[in-house]
Amino acid sequence: MKRLQLFGLLNKDMDQIEKELYRSVQGDDELLTETSMHLLKAGGKRLRPVFVLMGGKFGHYDLEKLKRVAVPLELIHSASLVHDDVIDDAELRRGELTVKAKWGNRIAMYTGDYIYAKALVMTTELKNPRIHQILSKAMVEMSIGEMEQIRDFFNSEQSVRHYLRRIRRKTALLIAVSCQLGALAADADAESARLLYNYGYNVGMAFQIRDDLLDLSGTEKQIGKPPGSDMRQGNITLPVIYSLQDARLRAPLLEEIEGIREERLGVGRAIDLILSGDGIRRSEELAARYIAKALASLDQLPSNKTKRSLRDIAFFVTGRAY
Amino acid sequence: MKRLQLFGLLNKDMDQIEKELYRSVQGDDELLTETSMHLLKAGGKRLRPVFVLMGGKFGHYDLEKLKRVAVPLELIHSASLVHDDVIDDAELRRGELTVKAKWGNRIAMYTGDYIYAKALVMTTELKNPRIHQILSKAMVEMSIGEMEQIRDFFNSEQSVRHYLRRIRRKTALLIAVSCQLGALAADADAESARLLYNYGYNVGMAFQIRDDLLDLSGTEKQIGKPPGSDMRQGNITLPVIYSLQDARLRAPLLEEIEGIREERLGVGRAIDLILSGDGIRRSEELAARYIAKALASLDQLPSNKTKRSLRDIAFFVTGRAY
Repeated sequence: MKRLQLFGLLNKDMDQIEKELYRSVQGDDELLTETSMHLLKAGGKRLRPVFVLMGGKFGHYDLEKLKRVAVPLELIHSASLVHDDVIDDAELRRGELTVKAKWGNRIAMYTGDYIYAKALVMTTELKNPRIHQILSKAMVEMSIGEMEQIRDFFNSEQSVRHYLRRIRRKTALLIAVSCQLGALAADADAESARLLYNYGYNVGMAFQIRDDLLDLSGTEKQIGKPPGSDMRQGNITLPVIYSLQDARLRAPLLEEIEGIREERLGVGRAIDLILSGDGIRRSEELAARYIAKALASLDQLPSNKTKRSLRDIAFFVTGRAY
Repeated sequence: MKRLQLFGLLNKDMDQIEKELYRSVQGDDELLTETSMHLLKAGGKRLRPVFVLMGGKFGHYDLEKLKRVAVPLELIHSASLVHDDVIDDAELRRGELTVKAKWGNRIAMYTGDYIYAKALVMTTELKNPRIHQILSKAMVEMSIGEMEQIRDFFNSEQSVRHYLRRIRRKTALLIAVSCQLGALAADADAESARLLYNYGYNVGMAFQIRDDLLDLSGTEKQIGKPPGSDMRQGNITLPVIYSLQDARLRAPLLEEIEGIREERLGVGRAIDLILSGDGIRRSEELAARYIAKALASLDQLPSNKTKRSLRDIAFFVTGRAY
């Protein structure tokens, strides 16, 4: 998975962020450096740092300050991925072996703890208590979201609202906070910070819905791991919930889900059932509604080059190809 | 395991801390509250909060401020215990079922993540970046210590120095920081904060050595879990390292350790071998040397009632009975 391609100078600054990311996990302990680098080098779109830098463009852009927010945000995201992989028994992530698969659960857990803590140390260099507070609150929400996800495994009775609350915590909040903290670290005005937060929140919701869609309709090459991984682990996502609302699909799909839970069945027929209904289309529509809201927040921000890029990213998220 | 008994008012203040500890994990999510409360209610000596309050006595003692350091420190300690129990496959802790044993690895992992994050949110209420920095750095060191411990499992070649570096990170630092942050939160002078840090560091080292000793020479009732747990999981502690330096014990002990690693043997004979040599006595002597250093730091602090209590705690740690 590659980094987003951005306009001119931002690409250069993102190279700096990339270097700083690697530097941040050096030197403490050989094994922790190795596991952390393995995780970071597997790549990713670096969406959160990109949003930080773009948020910074609405204030006094200072890369040195923005780094101290952008790097921690990517680290927190990465740490949550290592812990997720322990939970999900995932072998592959972004087409690479996971830390858990390569080194085992214990080492993956402490790699996550280490990266979380490193992230926090770096934010303390900014001496802005509000930034720490926003970040640590986002971490609380993320862990609640993760817990909700475990508890909701194979729960076929969950509502759309339930699902949305979960992905809000799991994904959208950290993206919202990325946009917001970029603005705050650059001393942008409060209204811009608020609009950027709303933009990030809505893009984040759309992003996670698309991610969940791709797990059902994408290919292994596209998504870097076997399709249907969510279903296999019992993660009931939006297209599944919509499909369960379809009178024709409900009974056979429930049977498939029961079979997957009992490890009697693969996910193939469940996916076919979902693809045969309108769960995918309805999910795409909901994602598009979030994107529309994100664009409405953007409209209220001052016009500049960054605003156009943020619009491009929003569209990229809706139709995103890996 | 019971809280330490302290003089007059401090006991009342510790009741407040206890309430605040429970309150800190309420309300976000039913399951997280349940798992966190299970962990916190299992008790513990609350050593870290006690040290915070005592550190505060060397400045302008303000319980409201001190709470915001004492509670996070106990939470960070508790979170590290839940994660340890995942790693150690531990069934019992303080005589109670562990979160891991009761709810499984996944839930234990996110309970830890949640409690860490809640701890950080609370410290941000203090608006003192230096306190956040000290705390998050201590968390980095703790995770490095944990990783070293995993890597050193069944490593019979490790030196005493190696062991001491590990327990410094795993245990002593957080206790040192507890004393220091109590002083800082109460705006004590820098010299008192430094001396309190040194006191805490040395008491913490002695404390962990005693803990490791008790695992070999204590009873299940005394220590709240089956004796020999460290040996069983491959954690080579100080008395073992000393025993391996004994020409008479080295060969048979290495054989026992190999057998334990291969799960062919129990820990009984290994423990008997260790008890037959002078590893226990030498470890006790080293713990006593740390206590002596702790007392030397204390001597330089202004005389007050708290200083006498800190002295009592140091002696309590050396000869501690649960």
